[in-house]
Amino acid sequence: MTLSMKLADRVNNLGTETAFVVASQAAAYAAAGNRVFPFHLGDLNLPTPPNIIEAAYRAMKDGRTGYTPNGGLPQLRELLAEDFNRTRGTSFVSDNVAVQPGGKPVISKFLLTLMNPGDEVLYPNPGFPIYESQIEFHGGVAVPYGTIPGDGNFTFDLNGLESAITDRTKILIINDLHNPTSAECRPEDRRKLAELAVKYDLMVLLDEAYFDVRYDGKSVSLISEPGMIERSVVLYTFSKRFAMTGWRLGAAFGPKQIIDVIVTLNVNDESCTNHFVQYAALEAMTGDQAEVLNILHILRQRRDLCVDMLNDMEGVFCYKPNATFYLYPDVTEAMKNKGFSMYQDFLVSALEHTGVSMCARAHFGTPLPGETARYVRLAYSGIGVDDIEEGLGRLKSYFSS
Amino acid sequence: MTLSMKLADRVNNLGTETAFVVASQAAAYAAAGNRVFPFHLGDLNLPTPPNIIEAAYRAMKDGRTGYTPNGGLPQLRELLAEDFNRTRGTSFVSDNVAVQPGGKPVISKFLLTLMNPGDEVLYPNPGFPIYESQIEFHGGVAVPYGTIPGDGNFTFDLNGLESAITDRTKILIINDLHNPTSAECRPEDRRKLAELAVKYDLMVLLDEAYFDVRYDGKSVSLISEPGMIERSVVLYTFSKRFAMTGWRLGAAFGPKQIIDVIVTLNVNDESCTNHFVQYAALEAMTGDQAEVLNILHILRQRRDLCVDMLNDMEGVFCYKPNATFYLYPDVTEAMKNKGFSMYQDFLVSALEHTGVSMCARAHFGTPLPGETARYVRLAYSGIGVDDIEEGLGRLKSYFSS
Repeated sequence: MTLSMKLADRVNNLGTETAFVVASQAAAYAAAGNRVFPFHLGDLNLPTPPNIIEAAYRAMKDGRTGYTPNGGLPQLRELLAEDFNRTRGTSFVSDNVAVQPGGKPVISKFLLTLMNPGDEVLYPNPGFPIYESQIEFHGGVAVPYGTIPGDGNFTFDLNGLESAITDRTKILIINDLHNPTSAECRPEDRRKLAELAVKYDLMVLLDEAYFDVRYDGKSVSLISEPGMIERSVVLYTFSKRFAMTGWRLGAAFGPKQIIDVIVTLNVNDESCTNHFVQYAALEAMTGDQAEVLNILHILRQRRDLCVDMLNDMEGVFCYKPNATFYLYPDVTEAMKNKGFSMYQDFLVSALEHTGVSMCARAHFGTPLPGETARYVRLAYSGIGVDDIEEGLGRLKSYFSS
Repeated sequence: MTLSMKLADRVNNLGTETAFVVASQAAAYAAAGNRVFPFHLGDLNLPTPPNIIEAAYRAMKDGRTGYTPNGGLPQLRELLAEDFNRTRGTSFVSDNVAVQPGGKPVISKFLLTLMNPGDEVLYPNPGFPIYESQIEFHGGVAVPYGTIPGDGNFTFDLNGLESAITDRTKILIINDLHNPTSAECRPEDRRKLAELAVKYDLMVLLDEAYFDVRYDGKSVSLISEPGMIERSVVLYTFSKRFAMTGWRLGAAFGPKQIIDVIVTLNVNDESCTNHFVQYAALEAMTGDQAEVLNILHILRQRRDLCVDMLNDMEGVFCYKPNATFYLYPDVTEAMKNKGFSMYQDFLVSALEHTGVSMCARAHFGTPLPGETARYVRLAYSGIGVDDIEEGLGRLKSYFSS
């Protein structure tokens, strides 16, 4: 028996982030001596605020290097609950919070806690590819719903979502302030989603990774809608808000009964999150916020520049979303003008002619039936304004040539 | 439908480390103003060597705060492969190593990669409780094998193990240098285990968490036996060797084909391990080892004192194992003398009369049929020699009273 025959059946259903292929192509192109403009990265090229770094160092030297309680430091859980209540209008306590080594672990732990094999799970497509991967890996049935161009931004296709509900639908995944489209629920969408969740008795994962990456107005959580507190788990991360992607720190919020299971999964999976990183989190949340505001200021400048330059290109249309650090321009005409029908050929050509590296719609799930428009995703989290100017300038020339 | 009815069926099979109950009892007793001697902790009360802390701080300040490749920093994977080859006689390369946020994640990732629902998995009982929990949680059938008192130390019950093999047995878990008994394979045991694994075509998890916590002689890995490289995954951790438990850093070693899947599970579960912690690992492995040797020196002193004092107690017998930081004394007579038949009553009485907090055999799995002797587990990782002297002195008096 060969080794591949010994792999568990579920491995056949394991997905990944195919955007890493783009990163490899960009790295190979750069290694060959070419200049690359990295619009494919969902990582931040901004340093973690120094007060957070110093807090981690102090904690290490103070001996905060052993295990913490599995659900996290009590004072951090409490602080997170208070912050959550302030921003979402809940009345959670420590028992409603489980600290995690990143936001991502909340996806698998939520599904393991609530999804049985055969359960249907509604998830956004285009969307973060790990939803579909983890649903199918753990025996669920991943049922996509789409996003649609709306008035000033993408919105979610709630009619499509509702028509996909069957009596086997148990779980709904929402990524309001959405990767890759930056789609955001309007107030009527939040009402409608909550009504659907209650009507069909769905458990809901609210991926709010970008809740605090907001330039105008105020993010509103779906958990604030009637009936949602008792059926929602919220994915929270320190990665984006505090430029702490590589620190691996996040949290799950939800009903105590679910959080208790998630804490037991912590016992099973990783014991706890890094001890002194949790001390750094205390500083991140209670210390000086000047650097945190500065991160938003920098990202906003990048967004404004990107959107203006993209809309100045032939055959390109781009919304100006209020949140996240992703742009999802419609490039249907531009691709047609350049004679491409396949994303992969288009991306490689753009990279080789301009150095601009970006992801396409296809990296965020298989396109849904009826989808005809073509989109790429540009992240401005990992690239400064000078490089944006140079890179998108080249892209404009390429589209016009 | 109540929330508990919504939990996935697999949650019914989720176990935990019941030793945390002991920790809670000890904490409650201490909070009431009593002195506690913490022999229940598997955590180290020794600081991480300062050169490792400084390396982490330097890396943070150098901006090592974004994501790393999912399998770990290339230079760390390479260094780990070299170290592994030096100590285990393999010829692994980077592709045979996946960095993990701790040793523990290797257990669930190994099982998810290789175990189908219904597969039988042989695991040590007494043993680390997460094996049984994760086997059953992911749909496998956990089949225990025991340890037996041998000549100078516990050994594994290989006859019992062999007789438990059926045609549904797919996986074998071995924790050579064993928690809680400190059991160690003799050369003939390693030969026999490898023969069994090959004969019955089993995939093997080698939990070598204590490989480097050794006081005399040299640890030998089962992976060095014929036929084992292609069927083994080794769990490696920085926690014990470098006093880095709360840093959450470990690795999986094995065939590329399996490691590739485990790296894809990293993509799905946590993206990567903390970036600057991986830089600290480089220093831990290549920097000055004086502090690392000092950790072993301190643990050895504690072991010697504990073993001598335990064997000086009425109705207690304890081996002097060469590795780990656990002792597993036979307290059959002592419990009988004190009139206890239930572990829980015995532990509470010992705590309340002496302040000594420890775990019992029952915290490491349901006793097997035919087991009559009674054991407790004392960890000396979290308690210094003065407290050992005081605590075990009180325990001796208690057993004599």
